[in-house]
Amino acid sequence: MKSYRKELWFNTKKQREFINITPMIEECVKESSIKEGLLLCNAMHITASVFINDDESGLHQDFERFLEKLAPEKPYDQYKHNTYENNADAHLKRTIMGREVVVAITDGKLDFGPWEQIFYGEFDGMRNKRVLVKIIGE
Amino acid sequence: MKSYRKELWFNTKKQREFINITPMIEECVKESSIKEGLLLCNAMHITASVFINDDESGLHQDFERFLEKLAPEKPYDQYKHNTYENNADAHLKRTIMGREVVVAITDGKLDFGPWEQIFYGEFDGMRNKRVLVKIIGE
Amino acid sequence: MKSYRKELWFNTKKQREFINITPMIEECVKESSIKEGLLLCNAMHITASVFINDDESGLHQDFERFLEKLAPEKPYDQYKHNTYENNADAHLKRTIMGREVVVAITDGKLDFGPWEQIFYGEFDGMRNKRVLVKIIGE
Repeated sequence: MKSYRKELWFNTKKQREFINITPMIEECVKESSIKEGLLLCNAMHITASVFINDDESGLHQDFERFLEKLAPEKPYDQYKHNTYENNADAHLKRTIMGREVVVAITDGKLDFGPWEQIFYGEFDGMRNKRVLVKIIGE
Repeated sequence: MKSYRKELWFNTKKQREFINITPMIEECVKESSIKEGLLLCNAMHITASVFINDDESGLHQDFERFLEKLAPEKPYDQYKHNTYENNADAHLKRTIMGREVVVAITDGKLDFGPWEQIFYGEFDGMRNKRVLVKIIGE
Repeated sequence: MKSYRKELWFNTKKQREFINITPMIEECVKESSIKEGLLLCNAMHITASVFINDDESGLHQDFERFLEKLAPEKPYDQYKHNTYENNADAHLKRTIMGREVVVAITDGKLDFGPWEQIFYGEFDGMRNKRVLVKIIGE
C-alpha cells in the first residue's frame, strides 16, 4: 500500500469564496503515482468546506443566497459563539456544505462523473487556511 | 491490496425519487471478494445524492417536504443557475443530503447498524444517471 | 494492509447531546498501530451523527437552535414518520450534521487542523447507541 499527503494553502480576498481546486487535486494524484485507491480531501479548518458540485457562477451565487438564508451572518448577536469572533455563521455554513470529500482513484485518475468539480468553500476568509489531501492505494 | 469498481445506472420515472440500493451494494461487496476494507458509494452527478437512512415511506415524504422548504423548486427565476435548465434546487437539495457515503467492510459484509440502508436520492431525474461503487481492502 | 474495528457505545442523559469523542478515537488509532491510512467513524444509528467542529459550548447552543429552526421537533404531527415514534426531526437533524467523517492517519496520528474535534451528535438519545470506528492502512 502506498500513501500520499499534501497540504494546500489558501488566503482568499473575500470573506466567502468558492475556489475550484480540481487541477491541484489532479496534480496530487499524479505526484502520488497511485493508480487504484481512495482520495480524501478535507478542510483543516472548521469554518471552511471541501465539496463537489458544478463550476457555474450562477449556481455559486445561489449557494451564497441559500446559505445566508439558512445561517445568516448578521446580526452577530443572534449566535452565542460570537464573543471574540463573529464567525458562528461560518461554522454553520460549512456544516451544510460538508467538511470533506472522498473520491475514487481509478487508472491513476479522479474517477468523476461528467460535471464533478472539487471546490474549496471559504466562509471566514482573508487569512491563511489549509486543505489536506491524503491518498491511499497502489 | 485489492480494489473493485462498478457503475450502477438509474433512470427514475419521477423527477425526485429515493431508491434503496442496499441489495445492489451488497452484491458489489460479494463480487469484490474483499473481506476488510472501505467502500465508497457516490453519485456521479451533481443533482443526485447517495445517503444512508431508514427505508420508511413516511420519512421519505418528510425528506421531500423538508428539502422543498429549504430549497424550493419553484419559482424557477429565484435561482441564477436556472437559464438553460431549471434544476438549481436539485443542486441545493443534493448538497443537504450529501454526495457520498463511506461504509466499512468487515468479514466480507457492509458493517451496518440495525436500520442503516443506502439510498440513491434523485432530484433531477427521468434521464440516465450513474452511481459509482469503489472498494479497497483485502 | 492492516485493518482495525471498534464499536463505541453511548447512552446520553438528554435527548439531544454533543459528546467530544476525539480522545476515544485517538485511543483507537494507537490500538490499531496503523501509521498511514484512513479512518472512518460513523454513527451506526440513523438518528445520530458523527461530525467535526469546534469544542465550544456557545457554538453547540447555536447548532441546537439552527437545527431546531430547520427541522423542529414539534409539533410531532407535522411529520408522516411520527406514528410509533416521534423522532422524525432526529432523522432530519442527523442528515444536516452528517453520518460520518473520514480522517487521514499520518505518522500514527489523526491528521487534524488546529481546532478539529470529532463529536458524536445524538438527536434521539436516552438509549444505547453505537459508533463504528474502522481504520485501514499500514
